[in-house]
Amino acid sequence: MRSYAVEFAGTFFLVLTVGTAVLSEAPLAPLAIGAILMVMVYAGGHVSGAHYNPAVTLAVLVRGRIAPATAAGYVLAQSLAALTAGPLALWIVSPENTQPLSPSGHQLLAALVVEALFAFALASVVLNVATSASHPDNSFYGLAIGFTVLAGAVTVGGISGAVFNPAVALGGTFAGLFDWSALWIYLLANLAGGAAAGLAFRVIHPHDVPPPVTAEEGADSPGLTVRSGT
Amino acid sequence: MRSYAVEFAGTFFLVLTVGTAVLSEAPLAPLAIGAILMVMVYAGGHVSGAHYNPAVTLAVLVRGRIAPATAAGYVLAQSLAALTAGPLALWIVSPENTQPLSPSGHQLLAALVVEALFAFALASVVLNVATSASHPDNSFYGLAIGFTVLAGAVTVGGISGAVFNPAVALGGTFAGLFDWSALWIYLLANLAGGAAAGLAFRVIHPHDVPPPVTAEEGADSPGLTVRSGT
Amino acid sequence: MRSYAVEFAGTFFLVLTVGTAVLSEAPLAPLAIGAILMVMVYAGGHVSGAHYNPAVTLAVLVRGRIAPATAAGYVLAQSLAALTAGPLALWIVSPENTQPLSPSGHQLLAALVVEALFAFALASVVLNVATSASHPDNSFYGLAIGFTVLAGAVTVGGISGAVFNPAVALGGTFAGLFDWSALWIYLLANLAGGAAAGLAFRVIHPHDVPPPVTAEEGADSPGLTVRSGT
Amino acid sequence: MRSYAVEFAGTFFLVLTVGTAVLSEAPLAPLAIGAILMVMVYAGGHVSGAHYNPAVTLAVLVRGRIAPATAAGYVLAQSLAALTAGPLALWIVSPENTQPLSPSGHQLLAALVVEALFAFALASVVLNVATSASHPDNSFYGLAIGFTVLAGAVTVGGISGAVFNPAVALGGTFAGLFDWSALWIYLLANLAGGAAAGLAFRVIHPHDVPPPVTAEEGADSPGLTVRSGT
Repeated sequence: MRSYAVEFAGTFFLVLTVGTAVLSEAPLAPLAIGAILMVMVYAGGHVSGAHYNPAVTLAVLVRGRIAPATAAGYVLAQSLAALTAGPLALWIVSPENTQPLSPSGHQLLAALVVEALFAFALASVVLNVATSASHPDNSFYGLAIGFTVLAGAVTVGGISGAVFNPAVALGGTFAGLFDWSALWIYLLANLAGGAAAGLAFRVIHPHDVPPPVTAEEGADSPGLTVRSGT
Repeated sequence: MRSYAVEFAGTFFLVLTVGTAVLSEAPLAPLAIGAILMVMVYAGGHVSGAHYNPAVTLAVLVRGRIAPATAAGYVLAQSLAALTAGPLALWIVSPENTQPLSPSGHQLLAALVVEALFAFALASVVLNVATSASHPDNSFYGLAIGFTVLAGAVTVGGISGAVFNPAVALGGTFAGLFDWSALWIYLLANLAGGAAAGLAFRVIHPHDVPPPVTAEEGADSPGLTVRSGT
Repeated sequence: MRSYAVEFAGTFFLVLTVGTAVLSEAPLAPLAIGAILMVMVYAGGHVSGAHYNPAVTLAVLVRGRIAPATAAGYVLAQSLAALTAGPLALWIVSPENTQPLSPSGHQLLAALVVEALFAFALASVVLNVATSASHPDNSFYGLAIGFTVLAGAVTVGGISGAVFNPAVALGGTFAGLFDWSALWIYLLANLAGGAAAGLAFRVIHPHDVPPPVTAEEGADSPGLTVRSGT
Repeated sequence: MRSYAVEFAGTFFLVLTVGTAVLSEAPLAPLAIGAILMVMVYAGGHVSGAHYNPAVTLAVLVRGRIAPATAAGYVLAQSLAALTAGPLALWIVSPENTQPLSPSGHQLLAALVVEALFAFALASVVLNVATSASHPDNSFYGLAIGFTVLAGAVTVGGISGAVFNPAVALGGTFAGLFDWSALWIYLLANLAGGAAAGLAFRVIHPHDVPPPVTAEEGADSPGLTVRSGT
């Protein structure tokens, strides 16, 4: 239960920050989003592995580091957090009107491409900095993960909304950032990017094969392979 | 006395930066605020634990890592720093007029919610990155703590002023940022968030129970459990 | 092949981010560019050394840490990534018209100077933080490398376009950021800066002489001298 | 000579970045300035201790970690770098006209106060993160040092120009940022802040007393007490 609680809390603050900062039209919103993900990874990684993102959980599953039932529980916790934080962000800001993003035509195609690419980049960064056997006890894993989303938010925020995370897509839709008709774009592209990252990691690192972890194992943390063994 | 002096100095520079940057209407003010907290944590953590915030001290007290009398001394030092730095910031900038924030109605409710939530997040980050037994000798604790405030300052600066810290509330009131009638919002919400973070840590980490530390113990640093033992 | 694949992927995301963020005129583009380089260095450094830049590969070659044939393969992978990512960025943003930079007169001279100086700084930072024997197992190498480009992008973006990387020059030209007639500026200045950094490192650190590494050696990573031996 | 060369190079890139970014009126100039200092500290700290600032050298001298003759050589190298980089920045940007800052009245008093306070903060951060016996082999020292200047640049850039460094004052005056009549403000306030930081460190850490280091001792690095001994 500890891991699920941490996945809920981290995803909650991520979605709350995305929703509130974007609805407030804060010029530094991408920095806030990258920062909150970074700090939640540092705060919760030693408990749950700090996925906060179904696409990352899928990547860790494909990479073989989390048990399927635990992965399902993670996605459930992440989704509940999105359902809580999205409406809360909308209530906090209470904008006079929202303009949900609904890409079509060229923007729809471009959104599919950039959402898949940056979800692939994000999940690849997670697998390489937090689950690889190469950097035991590194201190940069949260910085690398958070700033991947920061880079993507600045770069493709105007193209696709810069989601890279089905939980953010769900919460952001409740917050009025995305139209319901656009939700499939993020679910499809982000999960495809996450799965591809898991496969790519296995191809590049064929000998780095830890056993899957379940949330019940206590001190062990799904996703943070190396650190949790310290 | 060394710990109290460091708590005074760190809180002084934090409140001075908040007051001066916000009164100057610097567009990058949230970055300056997060950065000054980060660097003061790195500079002073090995002496005092680098709380600089009564809500954090309360969280560390609830978590059982600081002795009650030492905690009271910390809050006193933090308050004196706020009383010094707030008026100094006002003198430095000398704005023609100030517009103290005084939330009411929906904004008051929203301010209570976001101040409690981000104070909870901040104190939870502190407890997990700086006092947990899980990451001995990590180098990320200051980055995580400072950038939590950066994320909050960007995200809810326009809602509540993004305080998360009773000492900042006090100093900011002297600097003309907040109306005296609003001070209770921050005291109540921030301390509630800090206490809740302490309780949550105990629930999530039932076996991570170090002894409380007093400021007189020299090499030991209240709040920085793990590193101080190195 | 693993190293070449990682060089391709890291350079691809770097050039994609530069092209898309600059064509989108994102105000925080320099932050995105520095961040994506940082995260790609952290994600791929343990495999390929994370050069992502022919000028860096040249510096590592002059410093004597990579075998010539491997260096040639790296530059080929980097160039292919630029040829892929540049046109893709142009397609993603699809700007109504582009204004390729084509410095002349004073700006041309200034561009040559700043491109050489910052390429020297970038390659010197790489050699000192990622290949020096002085900091085994440091966690800051990606932060230092990425933020060198961030600093340069803010500082001389308006002078030369802030390239510091022949692969970015090539990809950016395909994306419509630079005129074909300006390409020689970056190739000449960046490679000169990289070569000078390699020579300067040898003069400053005469006793830090590791053997050159080829991409075929598996666990060893060209460029990340110290960490790869851990 | 290696240490002096590194002090020259680091100060050169710091002053070049300050001059060019500020003359270009780049909105993210404070971020560039903090970033270049950070990366130069990471790149050169293992050779020279990475002072790049006479006020820091004075603080390290007062703290007893550098030999007086070596300190004099450092200040000379830093000054020569400022004399080189300041005019170069002016040539690179070639602004139509410059408006050198020349504080008077309240602004002069405020400038003296904030320059002394932030120079004290900067030198205190350097002493605590890079020369303290408490954090051997930490990876955050460059981040803490660079982001202190970032915080100050955002916060008091509009008050005093945010110098905190006599070498930056000198170089910036040559670049046209400050009036010659204002130079004494920075020399006085910054050196006073640095000296005070050295004294404060000795009071707070009475038992942390390493021997002074000269630049000729090779592997040892003045200023980076702990790391250089590793």
